[in-house]
Amino acid sequence: MSQLGKLYGLGVGPGDPELLTLKAHRILTTVPVIAYPSLENGKVLARAIVTDFIRPDQIEIQMPLPFSVERSSQPHYDSAAEKIAEQLNLGRDVAVLCVGDPMLYGTFMYIFTRLCDRFSIEVVPGISSVMASAAMLGVPITYRNDVFSIMPGTLEAEILRDRLSFVEAAAIIKLGRHFSKVRGILEELGLLERALYIERATLPNQQIIPITEVDSVAVPYWALILIPSNSKPQ
Amino acid sequence: MSQLGKLYGLGVGPGDPELLTLKAHRILTTVPVIAYPSLENGKVLARAIVTDFIRPDQIEIQMPLPFSVERSSQPHYDSAAEKIAEQLNLGRDVAVLCVGDPMLYGTFMYIFTRLCDRFSIEVVPGISSVMASAAMLGVPITYRNDVFSIMPGTLEAEILRDRLSFVEAAAIIKLGRHFSKVRGILEELGLLERALYIERATLPNQQIIPITEVDSVAVPYWALILIPSNSKPQ
Repeated sequence: MSQLGKLYGLGVGPGDPELLTLKAHRILTTVPVIAYPSLENGKVLARAIVTDFIRPDQIEIQMPLPFSVERSSQPHYDSAAEKIAEQLNLGRDVAVLCVGDPMLYGTFMYIFTRLCDRFSIEVVPGISSVMASAAMLGVPITYRNDVFSIMPGTLEAEILRDRLSFVEAAAIIKLGRHFSKVRGILEELGLLERALYIERATLPNQQIIPITEVDSVAVPYWALILIPSNSKPQ
Repeated sequence: MSQLGKLYGLGVGPGDPELLTLKAHRILTTVPVIAYPSLENGKVLARAIVTDFIRPDQIEIQMPLPFSVERSSQPHYDSAAEKIAEQLNLGRDVAVLCVGDPMLYGTFMYIFTRLCDRFSIEVVPGISSVMASAAMLGVPITYRNDVFSIMPGTLEAEILRDRLSFVEAAAIIKLGRHFSKVRGILEELGLLERALYIERATLPNQQIIPITEVDSVAVPYWALILIPSNSKPQ
């Protein structure tokens, strides 16, 4: 009976291939099989980030996910998990690529929960787009006793308003078509002057735009608003 | 007139040297000068993490910081910033090492604010102990519409209780002597069963202990409690 392969959840960071960790790079370049999400619109960001590191003899498993949030991703994750399990059962290690960090709003978690009872899993943390954005914007996020909240722009307006109303520092992620709603709430709460907008942090097409000049219909999913702490460091 | 050196804020991650990014590794191994905080009790974690990467010909600047929170760090940062500025004025690039991520509760920010008007600065994000802890604990932090808050255990009990009372997922950092207070609040809020305790994540002496068995007088500063999301992924 052959030994089972090991499953890796590899954070590949926000976009710049140099923001892979040494560990993710080592595992990525030595496993026989890699897997990554691909959207119906052809976007495969996780693979694009590490494209220069992939060897031609590595087996690649695409995990197609529906682009529309209206359709359930569940059957897609079921099917991807089974394709990955096939390779693990053959004794091959599989690295699932994940943009940013695998445990923070990552797609890897859906594979993790499906396979954690059957296989040995190691998660390699990755640079989150939140920290990368602060680095690119050149602003410290939090000092000393600040509370820092990360929240999706997809939340209902009421919840967002509530959570943002007593925040020391925040990042609002997954903006896309929710930008106008978020911008309105920030204005209401007097936070617009502190808010910084960045899209595709560390990618070659990164954009930093004054928030009042952002075209709300052109905001991508990979955009975020950072509200750095107002505390004064000494 | 000689050209000024460039200042780098290098996130060196939570402890495992392999969790440096390729970029931090490249810069660390090529700059002529490195600087790092050292506590009065002799602890120099940032340097210890990367000790195998440091060359004997690199100039090292120690930035002594008071161990006690009762004394101001301000004159120490002033003096460290001036030592760094001297090297930059000589045209030498300087990398300031920072445990975790430089912009998230990092000591680098105090150097950043002192020198950002005079020198060119590049920040290289690092793996935060929060993401590393989730990877080590093997638990996803957040799904879909969850809000995730990072808060220091040093906060007053009332504020902590308030912030934790409606949280989907949280990390409570800087525990140390504040552990008992935090544990009490989690119990009060019915969060103790979900709370996971880890100290020195990814370091050789990492410990994962059931929270009810933690010895409150032996909790280090580099310990955190993670409350993963309660949402059920599909």
